[in-house]
This record gives sequence, structure tokens and C-alpha cells, in this order.
Amino acid sequence: MAKVAIVNVTSYMGAEVARLLCCHPHVQIVSVTGRSEAGKKLGEVLPHLAQIDLTIGIDPGEADVLFFSLPHKASAEAIVPLVGKGIRVIDLSADFRLKEPTEYQRWYDFTHPAPGLLRSAVYGLTELHRSQIKGSSLVANPGCYPTSAILALAPAVKERLIRPQIIVDSKSGVSGAGRTLSLQTHYAEVNESVSAYALEGHRHLPEMVQELGALQSSGQLSVTFLPHLVPMTRGILSTCYAELAAGKLPEGQRGIAELRQIYLDFYKGEPFVKVVGLSPQTKHTLGTNLCLIHPTIDLRTNRLVVISCLDNLVKGGAGQAIQNMNLMLGFPETLGLESLALYP
Amino acid sequence: MAKVAIVNVTSYMGAEVARLLCCHPHVQIVSVTGRSEAGKKLGEVLPHLAQIDLTIGIDPGEADVLFFSLPHKASAEAIVPLVGKGIRVIDLSADFRLKEPTEYQRWYDFTHPAPGLLRSAVYGLTELHRSQIKGSSLVANPGCYPTSAILALAPAVKERLIRPQIIVDSKSGVSGAGRTLSLQTHYAEVNESVSAYALEGHRHLPEMVQELGALQSSGQLSVTFLPHLVPMTRGILSTCYAELAAGKLPEGQRGIAELRQIYLDFYKGEPFVKVVGLSPQTKHTLGTNLCLIHPTIDLRTNRLVVISCLDNLVKGGAGQAIQNMNLMLGFPETLGLESLALYP
Amino acid sequence: MAKVAIVNVTSYMGAEVARLLCCHPHVQIVSVTGRSEAGKKLGEVLPHLAQIDLTIGIDPGEADVLFFSLPHKASAEAIVPLVGKGIRVIDLSADFRLKEPTEYQRWYDFTHPAPGLLRSAVYGLTELHRSQIKGSSLVANPGCYPTSAILALAPAVKERLIRPQIIVDSKSGVSGAGRTLSLQTHYAEVNESVSAYALEGHRHLPEMVQELGALQSSGQLSVTFLPHLVPMTRGILSTCYAELAAGKLPEGQRGIAELRQIYLDFYKGEPFVKVVGLSPQTKHTLGTNLCLIHPTIDLRTNRLVVISCLDNLVKGGAGQAIQNMNLMLGFPETLGLESLALYP
Amino acid sequence: MAKVAIVNVTSYMGAEVARLLCCHPHVQIVSVTGRSEAGKKLGEVLPHLAQIDLTIGIDPGEADVLFFSLPHKASAEAIVPLVGKGIRVIDLSADFRLKEPTEYQRWYDFTHPAPGLLRSAVYGLTELHRSQIKGSSLVANPGCYPTSAILALAPAVKERLIRPQIIVDSKSGVSGAGRTLSLQTHYAEVNESVSAYALEGHRHLPEMVQELGALQSSGQLSVTFLPHLVPMTRGILSTCYAELAAGKLPEGQRGIAELRQIYLDFYKGEPFVKVVGLSPQTKHTLGTNLCLIHPTIDLRTNRLVVISCLDNLVKGGAGQAIQNMNLMLGFPETLGLESLALYP
Repeated sequence: MAKVAIVNVTSYMGAEVARLLCCHPHVQIVSVTGRSEAGKKLGEVLPHLAQIDLTIGIDPGEADVLFFSLPHKASAEAIVPLVGKGIRVIDLSADFRLKEPTEYQRWYDFTHPAPGLLRSAVYGLTELHRSQIKGSSLVANPGCYPTSAILALAPAVKERLIRPQIIVDSKSGVSGAGRTLSLQTHYAEVNESVSAYALEGHRHLPEMVQELGALQSSGQLSVTFLPHLVPMTRGILSTCYAELAAGKLPEGQRGIAELRQIYLDFYKGEPFVKVVGLSPQTKHTLGTNLCLIHPTIDLRTNRLVVISCLDNLVKGGAGQAIQNMNLMLGFPETLGLESLALYP
Repeated sequence: MAKVAIVNVTSYMGAEVARLLCCHPHVQIVSVTGRSEAGKKLGEVLPHLAQIDLTIGIDPGEADVLFFSLPHKASAEAIVPLVGKGIRVIDLSADFRLKEPTEYQRWYDFTHPAPGLLRSAVYGLTELHRSQIKGSSLVANPGCYPTSAILALAPAVKERLIRPQIIVDSKSGVSGAGRTLSLQTHYAEVNESVSAYALEGHRHLPEMVQELGALQSSGQLSVTFLPHLVPMTRGILSTCYAELAAGKLPEGQRGIAELRQIYLDFYKGEPFVKVVGLSPQTKHTLGTNLCLIHPTIDLRTNRLVVISCLDNLVKGGAGQAIQNMNLMLGFPETLGLESLALYP
Repeated sequence: MAKVAIVNVTSYMGAEVARLLCCHPHVQIVSVTGRSEAGKKLGEVLPHLAQIDLTIGIDPGEADVLFFSLPHKASAEAIVPLVGKGIRVIDLSADFRLKEPTEYQRWYDFTHPAPGLLRSAVYGLTELHRSQIKGSSLVANPGCYPTSAILALAPAVKERLIRPQIIVDSKSGVSGAGRTLSLQTHYAEVNESVSAYALEGHRHLPEMVQELGALQSSGQLSVTFLPHLVPMTRGILSTCYAELAAGKLPEGQRGIAELRQIYLDFYKGEPFVKVVGLSPQTKHTLGTNLCLIHPTIDLRTNRLVVISCLDNLVKGGAGQAIQNMNLMLGFPETLGLESLALYP
Repeated sequence: MAKVAIVNVTSYMGAEVARLLCCHPHVQIVSVTGRSEAGKKLGEVLPHLAQIDLTIGIDPGEADVLFFSLPHKASAEAIVPLVGKGIRVIDLSADFRLKEPTEYQRWYDFTHPAPGLLRSAVYGLTELHRSQIKGSSLVANPGCYPTSAILALAPAVKERLIRPQIIVDSKSGVSGAGRTLSLQTHYAEVNESVSAYALEGHRHLPEMVQELGALQSSGQLSVTFLPHLVPMTRGILSTCYAELAAGKLPEGQRGIAELRQIYLDFYKGEPFVKVVGLSPQTKHTLGTNLCLIHPTIDLRTNRLVVISCLDNLVKGGAGQAIQNMNLMLGFPETLGLESLALYP
């Protein structure tokens, strides 16, 4: 039994780690923290977790694995002192995702406290970095949008099927904005409405550029990423567009078939990425660690269109974190992540 | 008082024409039809219209203006015999929107019964064809998606600000699919889910290409249009992407300001198109004939991004139809369309 | 043209007064206030009101009619100094609804600053107090739940059709909780969930007891009122239960018919209360000042069941306030309130 | 490994049985049927079940346990020939729930084909009939509403805490209406609306009367049950009201405490019924087999108020069916039902 602690369990992401780990056969949750609710029983604050008999504390104490679900900056400050002490850390914030320290100044408006750690931390997109994750003690769990966009585009970028001008139009449920109150997540404001946000640039963009850029041996990617808020609790659907590179795929339906085969080959054997033949719905991933990907071509305009969807709190967060934990601890990768989507 | 009849009032679009006309000061609804519910009082079938004391019939009878809200093909068959009889017809179907008869074969799978009428019918996007609508007796009311996309892109295309590769990513509420039952609009299937549909090409695409194409003096547009279903009843938000043409706009924030001014000038004096400085929400158009448009530039990649939103049943349908009726009958254009958005 | 001011326009109720008055033909909104947003243009804070060209202020200034949409206690403090100055005041808070000053201590936890005014203020449930409202300069606009419950039960209580043990089970949309942020109105908390609240007693109960009690000449009512939150923005549906008094109505279907006739007679000529023959939906009142009432009998158990529904922000608030204003100013009662429900 | 077949897997209830059994460690799904989709792979029709590699058939074939999720009448016709053949049957329809054959004529409008079986079938409300279920080969799984209402009221009725006049006001998500298309479950009709239905009497009423009646040694219950549709996919919340019987509980808060203790004692050791101290939300049961119950007293009127909630497709259907299967097969009762609620 691995002993696990969850820092900031009262965030939606922290609570989701607890929900999933509660049924994990080889894990024992030994402590949960959450500054504002410290001293209360977990089930008082989050009734769906009442079965986990723990009091919310301030200090995670000793554990084999620590999940951090703190805001950026606070996360780095809490994690840096733990590095090198033999503890495995999985950080759900952005603080160790970017390799280039100056990006933290640019996108997150703070000076990274341990830029030297950025190279050794592993970007925890399991399908791209599985072998490094296995040996890592500090995994930077990817953002929810980047998980959907990178998985959707990785095969096309790697195989250079497309020109480097990429558009990612994402639609997200409201839980992605977290449990902190704001007018933007007030029920009557967001219900029955769709809107785009972060038009001046969303913080998840540099992750996409970094990871997709690393997949192509040369050249620059030009990515426009625009997130939209839709009135539902969970789910992200990303629609990705790019012009096809000349001469890479046959014309017409044969091109679509070959494209699909490239995607199937790329994700062959992956337990949680499914290349599907029909347009997927976020509902088909609800509560699961799946990412569904549907690649196709707009034959009239010769454009690649890839649609991906996932549950932002599972494969886009807590689920992928546990998938990474399983790898780090040598467990079967799917352990604790087997349940099917809650449909309808 | 103009006498008005509504054909197929039991469709969502027909019912919305009735709702709006009920408060129109210069109009009297004299008859409503709906084959499957004929013989019933209107208020029995549609309780919100109980105040309109009419029985649903089969034949619209005599009227100054007829609104047709039939499915495609059926609409053309019903309208063709009326042409030239001095009746003003506003068709909410697609049957007179496209100028090229062969497009009906290609996109709608039927041979148009009166291809000669296609040239004389006016495409009822009010802001682009106001003067022709005034004198017309057959107005083809635009589709909901094309209204949002064409209004969003018209200034940029007309001023040749962009290269001709255009992506329109639209998000629509479920009422756009109409009142006919289907698993795709069954509550538990569509609630808490987002999905793309019509990946093989949506029927609203040729309208966009026709109208945007007519705005530029030369060259071909290459448009990818992908609609998405989101869990809400009303509203369309279209996000449009294109590379900026070289040398048309200054760099940086000055380019954004100039772009915005071009849009403000283009829609100057328009009662129902508002160029807004912040990312708009569909909620701010709920129940109104407004189209809100927010043009900006992704400065990192030099791409135009235009977001437009509207209520698919009002500016995207019944409201624009009444706006057109007002023009055809010489009424003030905004008559009956003054109410503000239902917020929250 | 009556000059009207709206105090605390940035609340949902204040904003709804503004939305409805904007199209009122005999009213001019001369000022709007809202402490936290003072100095901003109304359309910046509430884009759907952009057409009303006013800056949010702090002092309402001079006007013929003032609408107050402040929290309780603050409302009384602001209104008391205005009384007797010839201004007509419509208070949307609870501060002048209850006749018995001690009730404010009990239910609202404050000492009423002007208990003497409670008798002269008129409880603005239009259908019950129309003649007093006409001559009043201080109208206490009813709560949203009491409006639905009192209208549902008034004929039965007045005609003594029922025994005095009454249960009111109400279901409300989330906008009733206002625009102030709380975890209870955070989107992801309230979406896809139903719950009861205020089990220890809701503040709207004493209004129901006061008004229903006044309708019967003698005896005590025993009312249990339990509100529930349902995942939608607007609408209240109240289901009311009581045992039938012996010997008042015939048995079987004839009893139901007679009951219905009593309700029809009671509300004869009312423009905004409709007694309907089928179970009503809140959707059929969306955006309107209607209250739909369906009275019936559970013939197996001889219980009265009355279902009423309305839009909590219109007949349950701003709409009824304007209905009252029309009466106070001698305008036709329905002026500015004619639009039909937004369906679907 | 028990071999299990699911008849009519394409209904929401059948699909939910499959979803839950897929992760059950001691069960193998050997066949699934569904007339209209026979011949297709299960994952084609229900993508969330793609992992279950079966083709939809017509005949369930041989199995240790058969789950039937057919409409009433069809279910009895399919099950009767199987009785006495050593197969264990769990029927999710109403066809074996009622003990009195004439009730089928009255409520379901058909003559029961095997009235003799009604006495031997066990009503599968696990908490009330656990020992009989263990030995049964034909379990009639309870309706979703009766499960919530009977569990809410059983302790009060058994201990004779209340007078026999009972009101059950239930609020249900839309999935309870099944996957068959109807205007009542069309997205735009049901979204943003609440309504009561079945005012003339709902078919789930006789189950409540039968089971609650059996809990009291003498006297007649008078139950009014009114279901409401709320805009969410899953979940039922039932609010139950009754006058307290004289002299059974102390006055004031002590009465509430004693009431709560009676409920805690009644459900002591139950894995899936939790007596909670705060008003529960349906969200806290999403996807789980839990029923949360909150008993309290309206001290002003001396009325019992009990609120219960559950997921209509799990404890209100498929989950309880699997709980019963576990008992019938001698497995631990909670097997396959351990996952926590999907929150938020």
C-alpha cells in the first residue's frame, strides 16, 4: 500500500484526486490539507468524500506520494523544499510544466523560485513521456486544455502532415474554473450562455507550443488557442484546424483513411486514448480517464480537422495524475481508473 | 394594419414569428397553419401563445405577408404558386437562399422546382441587402449560422483585410435543431455534453461562401465551417479565424484599434448589429434581434479573430424575418423588435 | 412621462426593473444607482442594458417613482427619510411587507426603524390589494415565493374549501438567490442537482401566513413552506397541498370542475393570473408577468393540490412592481408588460 | 464468475446495468439484447460501453442471472416462461412489484399473465427484504420514486411516529423518462423549466402504499404522490410531509434529535442508506448506489419533513438491482458498487 497525501483537497482537482484514489486498491490516503477548512472532517466540507475518514489538516506530513493542487506560485513554493528528499511529487499546478523560466514571468507574472528544477521535472502527458515519468520524482501534470490539444495534434505534427499554422478552438465546462467564487462562474451568469475568454492569450498556450514544438525536428509553430466556456460542469472538447502539408496524404477519402491509420498507429496500445470513427461527445468521457480523438479532413479545403474530448478533471487533471502515479510506483497503469463513463 | 399569416406555426421558428408579431403594433396575425395540429386552438399546442385567439388551420388564406417556416423542398413547393400574385413572402427555409440551382442538388438533394426564381429572390441578410429587400416580394431569410458568420466576416472580407482561408467554428443551442424529435435532441443525450456535427459539410456553408464571395471583387474563398451543439436552448456564438493580409493594418494594438474602427464604420447606424469592445456572451442577445460582434487580432500569430453572437431564433430567424417585413412594408425597421435581452 | 429612478440597479431585481421599464411608453428612467459600480456606464456593468444611456450613481435624485432593490434593513433605512415627501416608493425588499414589527426581529434579525409605517404601507400583491395600491405612496412588493403561494391558495382559503393545514413545496431557479456570490450559487455546485434549503424556516413564510390569514375571517393557518433550488435560471413552481374541508365541494370529477370554476371566478378579468386546465410549466411564464394556476383534487385522498408558476424576477418581483406602478400612476395596468413568454 | 445477460441493454436502465457490471469482479456479461439495434456492436450504439466486446442480440441465451429492462407487460411475457428453470431473474419493470393482480388492471391497463407468481416474487427494496432476496429467484426491482419515498418514510411509519396522511413531493431528472423519444423529453422543452406531471395518479403510487402499508400493523395510509420534472439528467429528491402522531416524540429540538436517532438505528449498518444531518443534494449521489436521508421536524407546525435523494438510475434502478444480485449470489453486498459520487 502506497501512502498518499493530497494538498489542497478542497479544490475541485484535489477533491477529484481523493475521489479516484478512494477506490484504488494499492493506495491509502493518509492525509489531506486545505487551509481554509482545516480542522473539519473531510465529509463535512465535501459530502461525497464522507467515506474517507480524515480530518483536513495544514501539513501533509509523511507520505510516499504527494499530490499538490495549489494555485501556481504557491505550489512551487511548497514543493521546492521537498525535492531531493525521496518523496514523489505530482504537481497539478503549472509551476513545473514549462522548461523556460522566463515563461513564468511572461505568462504567470512571477519569478520562478527554482528554475533549475524545470529541466528535471517531467511534463506528465503520459502518452508522450511515459518512460521519463516512470523514473521521475517530480511530475508536472499537464493542463486540461493542453492535454486535449496536444493529444489531438501530436500524430499530425510528428508526422509533419500539416503546415505549422494551427488553430485550437476549445470548449470547456465550468468546473475548469475551479471552486473559487467569481461572477464568471455564478450560476445565473454562465447558464444558458456561451462565450470566449482569454482572447489576449491563455496561460495554457505555452504548454501546447512547447510540447508540440518538441515533436517536430525543426521549424516554428504558430498556434492560436481560444478557450470558450459552455454551460455544463465537466468536459472539454477541442477542435483543431490546420492546412495539410502538400504531398503527405492521398486525396479524398483515401487521405482520411490514411490519416486515421496514422493516428491509430500512434496511439496503439494506449489504454486511455481512443481514436474514434465518429464525432465524439464529451459525455462519453464523463468521469473517466479517456481522451477520444477523431481526426478527419475537410476535403473541400484540404484542411485537417481533429476533434478531441475528455473530462477536464480526470484525463485533464486528477485521472492523468493517478495514471502517472501508477507508472511512478510500478503499478499497472490503469489501476483505479477502470470505471466507464457516466452516461447519460 | 398589415394582415399576416404564418405557415407551420408549430415549428420553433414559426412560433417565434408569432411571439414577436403578437406585440407588433401594425400587424394583425390573421391565420396560422400546422398540418399535424390542425383544428386545435393555438394556445392548446403552444401555451405561451394562448393570447393569440386563432385555430390552427391548413390553408393560410389571404394575407398581405406570408411567413413560411416549412422544411426545405416543401417550402419551395408551397411558395412557387404564390409568386406574382402580389403577396409578399418571407421564406425561413433555405429554398430561395442560393443563387445557383445546382447547389440544391448538391446540398439539399432535390431539384429546385423554380430555378428561375432564385435570381429574383433576395437574400434577406438585412445589413447587406437592405435596399433590395425593400422592393422585394420574395425574401429568402438567411440561416442562423450564416447570419452570425457573414456579419462577423463581412467587413474584413470587403476591405480585404484577410487572406481567403477562413475557419468558422460555431457553437449553437439545441433549439436550432427544431421541434422534431430525434435522439440528438433528447434531453439526456445532449445535456452536459458538447459535440461537433456535420463534419462532412453543413448545408449552411454554401450561403456563407455565396455571400462572402460576393463581397470581394475577385478570388476564391476557402471556408471551413464546423458547427457544435452546446447544452443550452438558444444562442449561437461563431468564432472566425483568418490570417491577416500583409500590409493592411498597422502592427500591435494600433492594428486592433484600426480593425475595430473599420467594423464600427461598416455597421454605423445599424440598429441590430453592435460592435463591442469585450468578448460577448450569447446571453446578452437572448430573445433579441441583436448580433454582437467583437473583432480582434491574435498579435502573436497575426490572425484575425472575430466573435459574433446572436439568438438563433431571432436575429438568426424570426426576428430578422420581421426586420425584413418592416422594410418591405415601409414600417420603421425596429418595430416590434425593441425588447431587451432577458438577463440573467 | 413619469420620471423613475432605480436604486441598486446592479442587483438582478434592479436590472430587471430597468429591462422592463426601458420599453415602457410612459416612463423615463432618469437615474440608476449601485454603490459598488458607481461611476461606470450602465452598459459596461450590464451589457444587455447598454441602450439605456445612464451612468450608475449613488444618489437617485428626484423622480416621480423610486424603485428600491436594496437588501433588507438597508432598504428601510433609505426609504424612511423619503416618506411624506410626495414621492412614490416601490420597495422590492421585505422591509415593509409585514404588518407586525416584532416579525422583523424574529425573521430578519433587526429592529424595524419605522414600525409606524408598516400599517400604512400596502402589500403589493396586486390581485388582492388593487384599490389600496392605487392610492398608496409606499408599496411593499411581495416576495417571489409568497406571490406564487398566495395566488395559488387565496381562492381556496377565502372560500374555506380546505382545512387550515397547508403545505407549500416550492421549486425555484437560481436567480432568486441574487447576484451576490456564494458557494450555493457557484455553477458547478448547483448544476445537475436539486436540494431543499431553509428547513428551519424561510423568511417568506410570515408573508404567506399574514396574507392568507387575512383572507379567512377566523381561525389559524398552519403552513409548512419548503423551498427547493433547481438547476435553471428563472422560474418558480409552487405545489400546494391541503385536505379538503368536509361538504364544500361535490365528490369526484364534479368537485374538480366546481373547484376550477371557483378559481376562474376569483381571478376573472385579471390580466396576469391565468387559471389553466393542464399542469403548467415555468417555461410558459419566462420573461412575463404571468402567474399560471392549476387547481385540482387528488380524488383518492380528497386533497386539494394547486400548482402555480411564474417568473420569479417578473411577477415574482420587477414585473409586479411595474404593474403596481401602473396602478399608482393611473396607467393601464398592463402597460410595458405585454410581451409573451420566451419559448422554447 | 457469474454469467449475466442483460435484456434490452439499449434502454437507459439496461445500459446502466452494463456500465456497473463491467467493473464487477465476479461477473461476466455474456449477452446483451435490444430488438431495434440487434446485430450492431454494443459500442456502436452506446459508445461508453465500447469496452464490452459484445454484439447486441435478440435472445439472451443461457446465463446464471438475467436482468430484464423491458417495458411493463413485455417484461412479464418474457419472464414467465423462464420461471422454475433455475435461472435467477431481476426484473427492472413493474411487472412483479405489486402483490395484488387487480392493481395491474387498474394502474397498468393489462391483465397480468401469471398472477400466481406475484406472491413468490420478492420486492427488491434491499433494506426491507434482504433475507427474502437472498433466497429468491425472481426479484422485482423497485421503481425509482418508490425507492426514495419508502426509504424516507419507513422508520416513521414502522415506529408509528406520524399520522397516516402522507404527502410525497418528488423532483426527478429527465433520464427517468427513458430513452424513448417524446416531446416531454425534447431538450428545448424540458430545459429551463419545472413542471408537475401525472396529477391524476402516477403508477409508482401503489408500490409506495403496498410497502409502507405493510410496515404498520393496522390502519390505512392516505398517500398523495406528485412527481415533478426538473432540468437535469439524473437524480431524484423526494420531500415527504406528515403530521406527527401525538405523544411519540418530545417537543422542540429534542424531538428532532430523537427522530434522527430512530432513523440512524433503523438504517444502522446499511452500506447504501445514509442518514445525514444536513439537507442533502442529489449531486452527492451522482453515479452511486447511495440514498441520503434527512429527517427533521417543522417545529412551528409539528410536521415531519423527510428529504431523501438518490441517483434514479443507480439506487433507483440498476445499482439496487446489482445489490440484489450480490445478495442472491452470495457476494458481498457492495461489490461493484464502491465508487464515490461524481462531484462536482
